[in-house]
Amino acid sequence: MSIGLELSCERRFVPQALLDALASRFGSRFSVAQSVREHHGTDESPYQPMLPDAVVFAESTEEAAYVARLCNEHKVPLIPFGVGSSLEGHVLAVEGGISLDLTGMNAILKVNPEDLTVTVQPGVTRKQLNEEIRDTGLFFPIDPGADATIGGMSATRASGTNAVRYGTMRENVLALEVVMADGRIVRPGSHARKSSSGYDLTRIFVGSEGTLGIITEITLRLYPQPEAISAAICNFPTLSAAVESVIQIIQMGIPVARVEFMDEWAVKATNAYSKLNLRESPLLLFEFHGSPASVQEQAEAVQDIARDNGGRDFDWAMLPEERSKLWTARHHAYFAGLQLRPGSVASTTDVCVPISCLADCVLETAQELDQAPFPYTILGHVGDGNFHVMMLLDPDNPSEWEESQALNRRLAERAIRMQGTCTGEHGIGLHKIEFMQLEHGENGLALMAGLKKTFDPNNILNPGKMLPAKSMQG
Amino acid sequence: MSIGLELSCERRFVPQALLDALASRFGSRFSVAQSVREHHGTDESPYQPMLPDAVVFAESTEEAAYVARLCNEHKVPLIPFGVGSSLEGHVLAVEGGISLDLTGMNAILKVNPEDLTVTVQPGVTRKQLNEEIRDTGLFFPIDPGADATIGGMSATRASGTNAVRYGTMRENVLALEVVMADGRIVRPGSHARKSSSGYDLTRIFVGSEGTLGIITEITLRLYPQPEAISAAICNFPTLSAAVESVIQIIQMGIPVARVEFMDEWAVKATNAYSKLNLRESPLLLFEFHGSPASVQEQAEAVQDIARDNGGRDFDWAMLPEERSKLWTARHHAYFAGLQLRPGSVASTTDVCVPISCLADCVLETAQELDQAPFPYTILGHVGDGNFHVMMLLDPDNPSEWEESQALNRRLAERAIRMQGTCTGEHGIGLHKIEFMQLEHGENGLALMAGLKKTFDPNNILNPGKMLPAKSMQG
Repeated sequence: MSIGLELSCERRFVPQALLDALASRFGSRFSVAQSVREHHGTDESPYQPMLPDAVVFAESTEEAAYVARLCNEHKVPLIPFGVGSSLEGHVLAVEGGISLDLTGMNAILKVNPEDLTVTVQPGVTRKQLNEEIRDTGLFFPIDPGADATIGGMSATRASGTNAVRYGTMRENVLALEVVMADGRIVRPGSHARKSSSGYDLTRIFVGSEGTLGIITEITLRLYPQPEAISAAICNFPTLSAAVESVIQIIQMGIPVARVEFMDEWAVKATNAYSKLNLRESPLLLFEFHGSPASVQEQAEAVQDIARDNGGRDFDWAMLPEERSKLWTARHHAYFAGLQLRPGSVASTTDVCVPISCLADCVLETAQELDQAPFPYTILGHVGDGNFHVMMLLDPDNPSEWEESQALNRRLAERAIRMQGTCTGEHGIGLHKIEFMQLEHGENGLALMAGLKKTFDPNNILNPGKMLPAKSMQG
Repeated sequence: MSIGLELSCERRFVPQALLDALASRFGSRFSVAQSVREHHGTDESPYQPMLPDAVVFAESTEEAAYVARLCNEHKVPLIPFGVGSSLEGHVLAVEGGISLDLTGMNAILKVNPEDLTVTVQPGVTRKQLNEEIRDTGLFFPIDPGADATIGGMSATRASGTNAVRYGTMRENVLALEVVMADGRIVRPGSHARKSSSGYDLTRIFVGSEGTLGIITEITLRLYPQPEAISAAICNFPTLSAAVESVIQIIQMGIPVARVEFMDEWAVKATNAYSKLNLRESPLLLFEFHGSPASVQEQAEAVQDIARDNGGRDFDWAMLPEERSKLWTARHHAYFAGLQLRPGSVASTTDVCVPISCLADCVLETAQELDQAPFPYTILGHVGDGNFHVMMLLDPDNPSEWEESQALNRRLAERAIRMQGTCTGEHGIGLHKIEFMQLEHGENGLALMAGLKKTFDPNNILNPGKMLPAKSMQG
């Protein structure tokens, strides 16, 4: 069972003529089966499924454009779908309509090792990409916990553990192909590393959560696999000692590739789920990339800072399989957390603040959470000032849901008050809509609504997401 | 004397009531004097001055908003103005109107050393910024040749010699305050290092060339001053040997901070203008940042690659004053080039291509230029695939201007054909408008025009720039 949601929108009428046209064009790649619709109306958020009226499995840009044209003509919602790993309700069909499954478009179209770029279809997942390019000596660093699709990651401006060194999807998408609401195709960006030519349409689509266009091709930056990699675990007596260390590391400009925080409960959950035996106190996971000498130098500098803050000596994960085990465990922290309270549902939040506010923001949040009647974990990509709270709720107890949402609200407000953002990497979806006005102001929201109306005048693309309904009425 | 321009637009009517209102509000900070208007209707492009009807010197966001409201009411053009260092005609008042001089808004509002950020007014110049923050141990790396304002650099998505390591204005602007055409104020972005909250309005304004809003405040990322810096000069027998070396350095992932190419003529001009005695053959200027050990390691790896390509042993510039002299000379390359042909005017171009195409693009361009009747130099930020051609024209010989523009056109088309862009860092302004359709396609241009109409329905903000007139009629 999962949590319901009060919505201000209604399902739209989907004419039979539209369904007939799609059925005739797509044959077995069109479905109204309950199980298929359920799969496409569900994600990793705690919300109840909301089913699309039908699902189309596209295999080409032209097919996506055909579906867009048809939906636009009939003013029927169209929701791009990857692997459904959203935590914020991005793919739920709150107004019904057509789910456009892009997982069949999963070809790596062109690797350009000389340019350190690759062009992929949107259904390629991040792990698939890295497996297929391994021989080139290059890799793609962006790694949200889930094995998400590159299309979905572009649409939510995803990041992950490597962002502190390599940036987010914002910095790593060079060019796109996008199907617009009316079926027109645009190709923003170029394969050059920089450009001053025209408005930055690429960055408009990156993070637009399927509301401005359907991403059908992505050109990404790649990076040489580091000559040397080492990973280390450092335990701290307190949460604040760990966070203070991170602040000093960033301020020193030490180019750590990863620096991840886990609180004691996240460590316990990870030990149980991933069969590790990490010391159960707040800890930082580090990874260092570079030449052997520079990796050693970075590690020594970081160890010194950690020690000054009461951190223990590093435990090293030197071998590739040890590192892989460690990072896989980190990526499974979400599923591990769920096991802290069997039968629970998770409500996750994700804020990002300036690093000078990180300690205060984490500590105030932890103090509030300590009063709550449910277990929680805190973990995060703290090198960016980004952390997550996972609250484990009894699905049969509405008061827990309400309390979690009050905590979520205070956390988002705290982050915004500290000149941060209500979401560092999960996106707005349904869950964070209520904070858009506070974060961006009335005028900022009006600009976003104007943008939406220009790009999608019939509001067919993933309607009901990101923008508050009232901003769309202006 | 400088070059005229055929324009498809006309000067607009500026009502006396508007001028009276501005005169009454701004007193001595309002001017219709010929000399003031000439200064504000001129930049470093080869075009003839085009004068605004009046100039207002703003000292606050509220004043900028007042001027915008008034201009919008009367549908009068409004052109933000910094130091006028554009090379592409950005500030020319092609439709007349009001030039809004922002150089009086030159305060550094807040340095946040803990967060590695700074918030500045738009009239702060890059050198002023670095001088004022020197004590903090931080620096701002983006350095177009001119001592441009941060507002102008944001508006043109500027970069420079450090972009290969630190990115461009696209990557380094965290947040903005912007006055919209109707005087409303928006504050896109946050002080967090990353965000997935809503459309990326910040990136829409960065590079919008004053056509979407007036940037009145900018929050930038800063970087710790490197522990060690070294600079080296490496001469090569041929242009292609130098460019091939750069390609290999980038592909190896060596984190050079700067790698600048100068052809033989650029070296000669720089020697004469800046009183240096660089060896007069194609050369690369390198700078390495990091710890002492990592700087040495980078330099050794680069020297090996250069040597394999026929490069000479490095000449080192170890002392800060030697480095400063070298980079000042590099930044003065534009003025140095002008001296190659006394009395000439310069037509500069600026393209950026994927690094795998850089050698071909530079060589084809040089071969064409060798046939031209005027001198030229080639130099560039080749680590990004970005290079400039400077053609030195006889202002009294229209056929030279025509030939330079034909060369410019073929170069832009070549760069776009190679999946690059017609401008890596100078922007579109007036000079590159004709390439917008080829680079972005009809649908991409239509989206940009839609964006412009949404943000500035009366087309008062820097009209006639960036977007072809016909795209605005749709």
